[in-house]
Amino acid sequence: MNSTDISFFFNPRSIALVGASPKPSSLSYTILESLEKIGFEGKIYPINPRYEEIGGLKCYASLADINDTIDIAVLSVPAPGVIEVMKEEFENVRGAVVVSSGFKEIKGEGEKLEAELKRLAEAKGIRVIGPNCLGIYDTVSKVDTFFISRERARRPGRGGLSILTQSGSFASMIVDEIASEGIGVARIVSYGNKVDVDEADCLEFLAEDEATKYVVLYVESVEDGKRFLEVASRCAQKKPVVAVKVGKKDTGVRATASHTGAAASRYEAYEAAFRKAGIIEVDGYEELKDACRVLNSYTPGRGDRILVITNGGGIGIGIVDACESRGLSVPQLSEEQKAQLSSKLPSFASVGNPIDITGNGWDEHYAVALREGFGEEYDIAIVAVLWGPPLLNEGIIDKLKAVADECGKPVLICSPGGNFTRKMSEEFEKKGLPVFATPESAARAAAILSGGKKQNARE
Amino acid sequence: MNSTDISFFFNPRSIALVGASPKPSSLSYTILESLEKIGFEGKIYPINPRYEEIGGLKCYASLADINDTIDIAVLSVPAPGVIEVMKEEFENVRGAVVVSSGFKEIKGEGEKLEAELKRLAEAKGIRVIGPNCLGIYDTVSKVDTFFISRERARRPGRGGLSILTQSGSFASMIVDEIASEGIGVARIVSYGNKVDVDEADCLEFLAEDEATKYVVLYVESVEDGKRFLEVASRCAQKKPVVAVKVGKKDTGVRATASHTGAAASRYEAYEAAFRKAGIIEVDGYEELKDACRVLNSYTPGRGDRILVITNGGGIGIGIVDACESRGLSVPQLSEEQKAQLSSKLPSFASVGNPIDITGNGWDEHYAVALREGFGEEYDIAIVAVLWGPPLLNEGIIDKLKAVADECGKPVLICSPGGNFTRKMSEEFEKKGLPVFATPESAARAAAILSGGKKQNARE
Repeated sequence: MNSTDISFFFNPRSIALVGASPKPSSLSYTILESLEKIGFEGKIYPINPRYEEIGGLKCYASLADINDTIDIAVLSVPAPGVIEVMKEEFENVRGAVVVSSGFKEIKGEGEKLEAELKRLAEAKGIRVIGPNCLGIYDTVSKVDTFFISRERARRPGRGGLSILTQSGSFASMIVDEIASEGIGVARIVSYGNKVDVDEADCLEFLAEDEATKYVVLYVESVEDGKRFLEVASRCAQKKPVVAVKVGKKDTGVRATASHTGAAASRYEAYEAAFRKAGIIEVDGYEELKDACRVLNSYTPGRGDRILVITNGGGIGIGIVDACESRGLSVPQLSEEQKAQLSSKLPSFASVGNPIDITGNGWDEHYAVALREGFGEEYDIAIVAVLWGPPLLNEGIIDKLKAVADECGKPVLICSPGGNFTRKMSEEFEKKGLPVFATPESAARAAAILSGGKKQNARE
Repeated sequence: MNSTDISFFFNPRSIALVGASPKPSSLSYTILESLEKIGFEGKIYPINPRYEEIGGLKCYASLADINDTIDIAVLSVPAPGVIEVMKEEFENVRGAVVVSSGFKEIKGEGEKLEAELKRLAEAKGIRVIGPNCLGIYDTVSKVDTFFISRERARRPGRGGLSILTQSGSFASMIVDEIASEGIGVARIVSYGNKVDVDEADCLEFLAEDEATKYVVLYVESVEDGKRFLEVASRCAQKKPVVAVKVGKKDTGVRATASHTGAAASRYEAYEAAFRKAGIIEVDGYEELKDACRVLNSYTPGRGDRILVITNGGGIGIGIVDACESRGLSVPQLSEEQKAQLSSKLPSFASVGNPIDITGNGWDEHYAVALREGFGEEYDIAIVAVLWGPPLLNEGIIDKLKAVADECGKPVLICSPGGNFTRKMSEEFEKKGLPVFATPESAARAAAILSGGKKQNARE
């Protein structure tokens, strides 16, 4: 029996890299580079009998040659070589990350190799992440086993988001995308075929992990439903957990089966389990990105009453449509509020929900609209900012931030447009106000904060 | 009765700018700048009794002072001033673009002014675009009356897309966004309150316009449903017409009413009219952007059978999910095709639908998969390209383009990721292969090409 504690994967003092190579085209070269660039502070032991030294580090012939306990042995050798390594005599390894492919996902011989890997790991009492995965990207312990170059997949800085994924391609996509969007992460685990460590093991760790403020889960299949439900419920009680299930219909199930070799059961079972565990289920990649962005600033569990403020009539209506089609409510202002707002806003403004300050308005009008309009009748405000009108300037960013802080409720910015808009959106983000580039994505984010309303609306 | 011909708006030899001003903060200053920057080749007549000359052009005191026929008089003066100008004695103006707000959309006095504008225009036989609009952006006749600076709203280059919109804020958003995404346009008309010229007049022109290859329509309300249906049907028979209806539910209707002063009728009536006219209806802003992108490369009316090719299992499954949830079909390869493909692809590839060449594959494998897989059993191919795997290089762009040309059917690229990916996506786009940044947006684009399947799926 392996120990259930996998926390050493997230706090290692030493990493061995089996299959280390000085050739820039090799995966292990990128891994060594990744470990150095993230600034891993523990010991790094390259292992390859053909070299004395790699990248300035002493190179060892085998794991057994290292006179130290290895918290993580990263195995970057072809699948049959993984088995050879695991058969060697050593007792100093706690965990392995097997990035190699060629196991269960290719069926036939690969399935046999994976069964053998499982047997050897259990016999040696070594916990294994993988095979067929990217492994760990961790800004807390400064570990990066991702064998994708930083040029092609940027790495995000430190933040509160932790991501668990079976799919390595999803891991490389999302890491790159959220880095480009300025969202920070704590731990990312790509566990591939999960011969040993699975989503439940990781959720158990993340539930107690102080660095993790919210969790995103990319699920192709779960084998032990009962344990998943128990652990996921525990984690979801402590912090927001968002999940996407891929491979929803028959074709998808087939695709999943050929991809990680996992037999996925019916989608409805996952849907029910997520609901029961208190997990916020999202529909796909777009919604997952919206979740990453909005939960970076706000916690979910909000009501569903949305106030819309805009400086363009068309986009205001578009936001209303997008909210209502996701089951959110966009109630009108009360007569008192209307009177109150009308007295404080210029006559060109249109006072309702949306509050439309029009292209003639500027930052002060936004501040008034948000301060006076965002009363207890509303749970979330979506503020559309179109940068066309020349009277609008960067001052709006600090003004809206200040009023949003006073309100203590989520304020989402919706700001579609090109280069100028995107530059301004970065400034909003720097102040902690999340920006969504379309009415639909702002509405999806609001639905996530209001906790799964969307699903109800579509059912 | 006004003439029904409005083609002079799209081929003017002379433009007068009433309310011209040398003050950079004025709207009219931006309009003059816009006209010069787009390179309008006809005569420009600034009109303002307080100046002798503006921006190097001789300035006139009134429209009557100009000894020339004015095809377009752009009126950029406060609403009451618009009425004053229209009351002046002149007979040399064919059409007016009234950009000023302060009419029907503010109710009360504004409604009276708009009625008066209507009466005066009819009496004088002048066709009017507006009020409360941005007017015309036209790369064919080189006219740009948009009073949004080019810094804040980039202008697209020439292309086959024409856009009709009531909402000026939508016009400024979409012009900026499609410019940033490299999509070209023919004519954009923002007609605001449509005191005279409406969507039907414009559709009538665009139906016969050779520069216009496809039309996007942003509809808040249509007053003359019968004429719209007739003209839209005629246009949709000649070229693809895509429409989004905003203000779908009650709250939206209220918001629309306060925005352009139009009383919107029930959404279902629009839905039926679009279907009857052969218009492809889209749901909102995101889907509209997808339509702009995909129709820039391909014509709709395709079947719904999708082939998916990928180098990442996770995203492949995500695309299948996204397609199936929009009513598209992702049928399996036949056994012959599987055998054929297996013999030509390396063993690490997974042959099915998706065809997964995995992170070990490179450009040649993509080309083989597309050439051999995209047979008559499939209507549209979605090719996921993840740039993480180091073996993949820019060569894939020309290779996929060549095979796509051989196939003669739509090939959509799906490529999520950050900066490196976005740079590569631009290269794909330059070759005419449209790129979608999420599985969902690729699936929406495919649904648009297959002609409204999506709506059926959601109903």
